[in-house]
Amino acid sequence: MSQTSTKLLISCPDQKGIVFEVSKFISENNGNIIDSQQHSLGLDSKFFMRLEIDIPLPTKELAQKFKAIADKFSMDYKFSSGKKRMAILVSKYDHCLYDILLKQKHGNINVEIPIIISNHPDLADVAKSFGIEYKHLPVNGDKASQEAEIIKNLDNLDIDFIAMARYMQILSGDFVNHYPHRIINVHHSFLPSFKGANPYKQAYQKGVKIIGATAHYATEDLDMGPIISQDISAVNYKHSVDDYVLIGRDIEELVFARAIKAHTEDKIIVHQGKTIVFS
Amino acid sequence: MSQTSTKLLISCPDQKGIVFEVSKFISENNGNIIDSQQHSLGLDSKFFMRLEIDIPLPTKELAQKFKAIADKFSMDYKFSSGKKRMAILVSKYDHCLYDILLKQKHGNINVEIPIIISNHPDLADVAKSFGIEYKHLPVNGDKASQEAEIIKNLDNLDIDFIAMARYMQILSGDFVNHYPHRIINVHHSFLPSFKGANPYKQAYQKGVKIIGATAHYATEDLDMGPIISQDISAVNYKHSVDDYVLIGRDIEELVFARAIKAHTEDKIIVHQGKTIVFS
Amino acid sequence: MSQTSTKLLISCPDQKGIVFEVSKFISENNGNIIDSQQHSLGLDSKFFMRLEIDIPLPTKELAQKFKAIADKFSMDYKFSSGKKRMAILVSKYDHCLYDILLKQKHGNINVEIPIIISNHPDLADVAKSFGIEYKHLPVNGDKASQEAEIIKNLDNLDIDFIAMARYMQILSGDFVNHYPHRIINVHHSFLPSFKGANPYKQAYQKGVKIIGATAHYATEDLDMGPIISQDISAVNYKHSVDDYVLIGRDIEELVFARAIKAHTEDKIIVHQGKTIVFS
Amino acid sequence: MSQTSTKLLISCPDQKGIVFEVSKFISENNGNIIDSQQHSLGLDSKFFMRLEIDIPLPTKELAQKFKAIADKFSMDYKFSSGKKRMAILVSKYDHCLYDILLKQKHGNINVEIPIIISNHPDLADVAKSFGIEYKHLPVNGDKASQEAEIIKNLDNLDIDFIAMARYMQILSGDFVNHYPHRIINVHHSFLPSFKGANPYKQAYQKGVKIIGATAHYATEDLDMGPIISQDISAVNYKHSVDDYVLIGRDIEELVFARAIKAHTEDKIIVHQGKTIVFS
Repeated sequence: MSQTSTKLLISCPDQKGIVFEVSKFISENNGNIIDSQQHSLGLDSKFFMRLEIDIPLPTKELAQKFKAIADKFSMDYKFSSGKKRMAILVSKYDHCLYDILLKQKHGNINVEIPIIISNHPDLADVAKSFGIEYKHLPVNGDKASQEAEIIKNLDNLDIDFIAMARYMQILSGDFVNHYPHRIINVHHSFLPSFKGANPYKQAYQKGVKIIGATAHYATEDLDMGPIISQDISAVNYKHSVDDYVLIGRDIEELVFARAIKAHTEDKIIVHQGKTIVFS
Repeated sequence: MSQTSTKLLISCPDQKGIVFEVSKFISENNGNIIDSQQHSLGLDSKFFMRLEIDIPLPTKELAQKFKAIADKFSMDYKFSSGKKRMAILVSKYDHCLYDILLKQKHGNINVEIPIIISNHPDLADVAKSFGIEYKHLPVNGDKASQEAEIIKNLDNLDIDFIAMARYMQILSGDFVNHYPHRIINVHHSFLPSFKGANPYKQAYQKGVKIIGATAHYATEDLDMGPIISQDISAVNYKHSVDDYVLIGRDIEELVFARAIKAHTEDKIIVHQGKTIVFS
Repeated sequence: MSQTSTKLLISCPDQKGIVFEVSKFISENNGNIIDSQQHSLGLDSKFFMRLEIDIPLPTKELAQKFKAIADKFSMDYKFSSGKKRMAILVSKYDHCLYDILLKQKHGNINVEIPIIISNHPDLADVAKSFGIEYKHLPVNGDKASQEAEIIKNLDNLDIDFIAMARYMQILSGDFVNHYPHRIINVHHSFLPSFKGANPYKQAYQKGVKIIGATAHYATEDLDMGPIISQDISAVNYKHSVDDYVLIGRDIEELVFARAIKAHTEDKIIVHQGKTIVFS
Repeated sequence: MSQTSTKLLISCPDQKGIVFEVSKFISENNGNIIDSQQHSLGLDSKFFMRLEIDIPLPTKELAQKFKAIADKFSMDYKFSSGKKRMAILVSKYDHCLYDILLKQKHGNINVEIPIIISNHPDLADVAKSFGIEYKHLPVNGDKASQEAEIIKNLDNLDIDFIAMARYMQILSGDFVNHYPHRIINVHHSFLPSFKGANPYKQAYQKGVKIIGATAHYATEDLDMGPIISQDISAVNYKHSVDDYVLIGRDIEELVFARAIKAHTEDKIIVHQGKTIVFS
């Protein structure tokens, strides 16, 4: 993926001429299509498209100019460019945190991380070793105030989206709705199996041969948001519940990083509670 | 695995000296241990063991001689040798059937298949092309009679266990209990997710990113028997429900064949509704 | 993939306006783009595109009309529609053959198979059980005549491409050049490791922990043609060379079927001895 | 794996009575076998065994007492217990280093890491953030002196084995032979393919569809030591050589950590230039 390119995401009713009109628009504005992916559920149904473009205009101006086409085809659309700004919420587990920080450092994930916020002080040194601000915002029995404090911090830093790196607090509906499809959570089970607490113990007791983890957008209804990425690992009789937890953490890291990467590259469209994740 | 070896499966309370006594018994009876695997849940808890032995005595005589040791340690145990005899139940889907027949032919699975029984006539030619007897036993509204007929056939042929290669009839509790941990079923979902009918459609509607299949021992409580093998395949937005079904069939074949292979090699112990599958 | 759609594959120097002109052409000819994938090596370098189109014109007429655009952009291009016609070459191994025949029967691979040709009579019954003509063309010391005979048969049946399902004869350069990028071969190793004979034995002796197989287009230079698909399976100390062979066959089937599927769906472009395989 | 258990590794000519004599020895010394794995290449050939034992005697005393049995069966054998002490050699790449440090911290790998040695100063802060001594030993054109310095440090700290976490210096034969099967290296290719420099570029140019990495014991003959672990990841036309490098690093981490884990748990026996890695 080019780091200086502009991305365009489109959803609209499927109909003839969409690609023609869009590519004409790009051509007339002196742009070049680097990558294009589209998905159609068939004529009279839904059409989805992601374009990566080299184009000299800023996204704001593009969005304005594009409005005529968007209206004609009843499109939802979004232009974006540049690095997104991500806040990380953590509690005490550091595995997903380290993984994201390292992937960002090594260039696997192309994102800015201005702040790490936690309800615990424990991981301040990790943030420091990566040169990132760490804000300790304890809940202290008043979640509403704490969440308001989080929002204030994120607003000040112009944050685009939030990664919940095993943040062990249930976010309020108000908070979640403040960031629609902009909060990425990781659940330590292969949803929809084993929802809720202690999924690895549940899996062990059921005798499954594979355990998994799920990264999804947070919604008010816990563990039910649109799934972005899932993966699994085989387990056998030699593994204890503790082993499941250790093995599971590797999968959590994996799906969490994939979900964040897809989100930063504007590769995700949510449609009817499910995601289209372009490759 | 040696095809002429004798297998010994043991479950008992964990305690000191088991391996010593068992290996002494084998040594005294002029045997040689080719492979051994064991699993312990810790002293005062459960011990499981599988041995593969080159030994000149027949299993019946071994079982008798071994009884003293078994009593001393409160063991469940089973000696076995030679190829097992497997019956296949099918309906109209042929993918699991072909896969098993080919794996048996090619030597991946070391088993005898004296009969294929179906509630439909459709797959008779497949059986014929592999030189195996095909029995068409329609249900005709009287499942009890049909099941009795199946049992009679299996008894006549001295069948050890049954493989349900997508047999689309619900077996009665009586039938299932007649073959405890001796009926292998394949469920077209990654249990415990999406139990019951149309699991691929359920998976599609939920928007999961991975679909799977499960091979398990049949029990009275449908889809709840001890899981033997599971596997998965990634799906993405390009796949329709029909694609899920096609992809799913490959996974069904895979887990079904693995489960049958493990069973034929006496590698499975069932304990508290879960399996230990030795490698 | 729609079975009635038209596919268009394009390679040309990258330059602005390609997508615009192509989509304009489709729009003007009353077509609808169902799926599009493109790949660019950057401006001034190479551009690759695959389109799937619902369009009322036959491919021949499309190709003619498209010529003006193709000339303008110095394009290599190909329109195609309908099922391709595939011949299978086999010797004595039946695993890849069965797999392809079943995948075709079940609809995983959308292709017509008018003929199976072999230098041995052994697999005639398999062909028969799937209702496909089987031609036994032994080499008898005169490979040139046998190959001429094969070509004659393929010409008569209007064959589009050839699948070598473990055909154990080395094809002559003349034969291979007669079907450029139209012969799919499967090599029982993870190329470029362990070229040539007995790759599983070579792998065993080297002590590798993973074995693999490769499907590729046949070229004059044996085992060196453009790689289409590769996969692997883990092996461990318990596996003998014979086990490697059995495990390897499953991988051979897998990569071979994937390569054939990609070819039948016009998803492969060969560029500088390497393939672009669209997803 | 129990962290307080004693491990016993045995290699000897295969013969009757080995398991019996060994288990008798353990029983007589008041031990309990927690886990046992064995592998035999057949009577008259080689026998390999790994035992995990709860036993009250120290390894030194066990080794002495066991000598009589070992002599009788011409055994190579080794008792070990407690955490091993590992030194890490690094240069500038930090991905394998971080991965190992985190896995050690989280308990996935049960090892002590008294020192990290590097020919560069760059990663001192990483070591510090994990509370581990970092020694900068530059080569300065005199590798012999630098290696002597490394050995001195390792001797002082009573190091059991060395993990080369992408250490970009070629070790001398003298150094390597000082630690036979006690230096674990990771090679950024799927050996034996693409030996030497720039393997990802080699892989890209060859057009392979899968890239891999290899962890192995270092030997004098570079890239040729006994392979311990290998894994792969699929690549496609969208990936550049730079992407290969990023994807490859994840595989390097994976196989490197697996190899270290197996070594720390005394699960590896080297036989004729190949490894047996017990599960």
